Amino acid sequence: MIEPGDRVLLIGEGREFFVKAGQNVLSTDKGQLDLASLVGKTAGDILTTHNGSKFTIRIPRPTDFFTYGKRSGAPMLPKDIGLVIAYTGMNHNDDVLDAGTGSGIAAIYFGGVAKTVKTYEIRPEFSTLAMKNIIDSKLTNIEAVAEDFLKAEGRYDVVHLDLQIQPEHVTHAYSLLRPGGYLACYTPFLEQMAIVVDAATGLFREVHTHELIEREMTRSKRGTRPSTSVSHSGYVTIARK
Amino acid sequence: MIEPGDRVLLIGEGREFFVKAGQNVLSTDKGQLDLASLVGKTAGDILTTHNGSKFTIRIPRPTDFFTYGKRSGAPMLPKDIGLVIAYTGMNHNDDVLDAGTGSGIAAIYFGGVAKTVKTYEIRPEFSTLAMKNIIDSKLTNIEAVAEDFLKAEGRYDVVHLDLQIQPEHVTHAYSLLRPGGYLACYTPFLEQMAIVVDAATGLFREVHTHELIEREMTRSKRGTRPSTSVSHSGYVTIARK
Amino acid sequence: MIEPGDRVLLIGEGREFFVKAGQNVLSTDKGQLDLASLVGKTAGDILTTHNGSKFTIRIPRPTDFFTYGKRSGAPMLPKDIGLVIAYTGMNHNDDVLDAGTGSGIAAIYFGGVAKTVKTYEIRPEFSTLAMKNIIDSKLTNIEAVAEDFLKAEGRYDVVHLDLQIQPEHVTHAYSLLRPGGYLACYTPFLEQMAIVVDAATGLFREVHTHELIEREMTRSKRGTRPSTSVSHSGYVTIARK
Amino acid sequence: MIEPGDRVLLIGEGREFFVKAGQNVLSTDKGQLDLASLVGKTAGDILTTHNGSKFTIRIPRPTDFFTYGKRSGAPMLPKDIGLVIAYTGMNHNDDVLDAGTGSGIAAIYFGGVAKTVKTYEIRPEFSTLAMKNIIDSKLTNIEAVAEDFLKAEGRYDVVHLDLQIQPEHVTHAYSLLRPGGYLACYTPFLEQMAIVVDAATGLFREVHTHELIEREMTRSKRGTRPSTSVSHSGYVTIARK
Repeated sequence: MIEPGDRVLLIGEGREFFVKAGQNVLSTDKGQLDLASLVGKTAGDILTTHNGSKFTIRIPRPTDFFTYGKRSGAPMLPKDIGLVIAYTGMNHNDDVLDAGTGSGIAAIYFGGVAKTVKTYEIRPEFSTLAMKNIIDSKLTNIEAVAEDFLKAEGRYDVVHLDLQIQPEHVTHAYSLLRPGGYLACYTPFLEQMAIVVDAATGLFREVHTHELIEREMTRSKRGTRPSTSVSHSGYVTIARK
Repeated sequence: MIEPGDRVLLIGEGREFFVKAGQNVLSTDKGQLDLASLVGKTAGDILTTHNGSKFTIRIPRPTDFFTYGKRSGAPMLPKDIGLVIAYTGMNHNDDVLDAGTGSGIAAIYFGGVAKTVKTYEIRPEFSTLAMKNIIDSKLTNIEAVAEDFLKAEGRYDVVHLDLQIQPEHVTHAYSLLRPGGYLACYTPFLEQMAIVVDAATGLFREVHTHELIEREMTRSKRGTRPSTSVSHSGYVTIARK
Repeated sequence: MIEPGDRVLLIGEGREFFVKAGQNVLSTDKGQLDLASLVGKTAGDILTTHNGSKFTIRIPRPTDFFTYGKRSGAPMLPKDIGLVIAYTGMNHNDDVLDAGTGSGIAAIYFGGVAKTVKTYEIRPEFSTLAMKNIIDSKLTNIEAVAEDFLKAEGRYDVVHLDLQIQPEHVTHAYSLLRPGGYLACYTPFLEQMAIVVDAATGLFREVHTHELIEREMTRSKRGTRPSTSVSHSGYVTIARK
Repeated sequence: MIEPGDRVLLIGEGREFFVKAGQNVLSTDKGQLDLASLVGKTAGDILTTHNGSKFTIRIPRPTDFFTYGKRSGAPMLPKDIGLVIAYTGMNHNDDVLDAGTGSGIAAIYFGGVAKTVKTYEIRPEFSTLAMKNIIDSKLTNIEAVAEDFLKAEGRYDVVHLDLQIQPEHVTHAYSLLRPGGYLACYTPFLEQMAIVVDAATGLFREVHTHELIEREMTRSKRGTRPSTSVSHSGYVTIARK
């Protein structure tokens, strides 16, 4: 049941709105939506504008936070987040450390999968913005800390790093991991990838760097072909303790 | 604490053994391992062979089931499983339907992420083999059914299909999905991908087909370069209700 | 020595102009260029505008015709033209048949390599435009014909097809080829590629379809990474008689 | 007309033989081939073994030298040779400098396209082996020199480098090029690519590095899919003077 302040997706009339249940009224080209009336409703219920347009209520999923969440920069792409989840075997028994938080999108994906997520972000204003996204996600197993990852303590099954990587980050990650646990480092540039691989090799039992090239396939009356819009975003190095 | 019948990884002396705690003795080139003595131990404990070699105990993760699980055919690759998890936003609130089960590896990954997984496999001998892997994984939220997916009922947040796809599979998946839920279809061949896209277009709100080309980067004294071993496995179509 | 009507590249002041030697004056933001004065000059000579800006004279290469030639549609990309040249081993002993001509860019590349090129284009207005590019290229070994490829006769070492492909095109190409010669078919869509492969298999001794995914690497102070602008254009099937 | 010593391809009975016309007899599982009788014959003629098997005579093309030529190491792949030809617009007006020669395969491709090719190889034994391939190709416009590329003089339209690259190679190539001419550097490793780009940037007017990822498409009764055998070989940097 939707509570005041909850994030809600309204879908209809060829439009999507990512709103907050509460006392506002949202004016759209399809009429006015009374957001207070969302409270108490549930997924699949209908909200009708003052002039009769109908919108279906949806509870947002992590994919919607990737689309509609506030951003402090370019977030990791879902394809790379998926690779981290799959190549670490992230699951509901895991304690995950994530740094840097950025917009918090990776933390929200991980929070939906793992037992606990602790996410470090050294820039306080980024951490503050990410907290808004995390609160919107209603995930209660994510703790956001505005601090340097190198100060992190504790024991983790997966450490995920998406920051200006230095060798000491890799060494510190190793010290935090449980045996059999995984470090996953996302690096957009080859030089950073080399730093990770050089620091991890020898220290970790296994080190592999992956690049994912993703293409969308298009299909029209003319035929089927790959889209020319291809996404490369970076390299993901997976190292197992 | 390890119980009789639990799957355990033993790591040491440059070797890995995927064993079952119990009354057996495992003979290795590093000496004999008494598997009965695993019972009551826990991750990180040491098992010593009769001649003094030491092996560290690990509780297997989903990645280990991909490596060591029994196989009835080529399972989906982790990169594609990760793409399904990320592009559906699969999380611990989700009821997931998976068909066909195959070796059960995708179901084990999903079981670590979702609230419940129900997995359909029309070939009873495949379902039986997959059950062994699923029992080994100790995931209690996976139900394996040796039946045709077209007979499936209930309501799901994610339906994942990896089978000889026909248009009626896509239509049936639509009927099982909650609003805002996702169908993810894995198809190795282009012709099957076309069947999925044609059946889903119009029915679902959004339809996108992705291809992931994965490369491993290698780094040696000679330099850094992409590996020539590149993995394409198939196409993943994501359709949202 | 440049003659009236010759195409010339003028390079300087951070600009490039693709002009025709003759009686015109070209007004640029760097001053007026007297194109009549190009006649009798040669590559490397300097042309000075009325206000003193200097432009160096270049004789255009095939790459410049790709950039500056008139276009009747999207021409084949150089990467794919290069693949045709390399996979057919096209060389100065070869008689090449090219169809459809399109903008004539592929014919111009081939004309610089082969002994003779005969290029067929069924749409007269396309053939007329292509003739302008071919005349500009000053290649005298290219013959452009505004006719259906199926009417082509003669004997060729390489047949290159970039048109709405039908099985009879493949069969006809076979009949025109010398033993050991190559058919190269460019097809943007998978369905067309399948038509080529199905028609060529059995008929030709060897049939291979290639896809080239090209990426540009970028290198800045931040580091080295693949560009996100990746070009896929189509499939090239190479069949040897 | 085939002369003594000419390379000839014999095709038939599901076999291919790359032979030299002359006084030998070739024993095959299909019978004995009298290679002396090749002299005076021409492409398309038939050679019959002593027991009646028939082989068709072919004059080898550059693609056959890639397949059958002697090798001193891994030669550049045709896809990359094609990219060099296309991105430099190499044509029959061009003087081309090639270094290092390696097995001479790239020089043979270029010799079939350009006016002249001069190829430098610092290792005399490699140059000797390459000469054998070049003589076999019957291309008379290729000059092979067993010397350091840094000692090369003259003026060229295209300089192609496939050697352990150093910044002075790039600078020297610049000095040899005619205005508007192209340097093409093939580098298997990223670190070498960076050397080229750093040395060429600023010096040349345009610098672009390309990576070609090639896949073969397979088509069987089960359907159409990309082959898992994908070829990456290296990076090709194209710089224009």
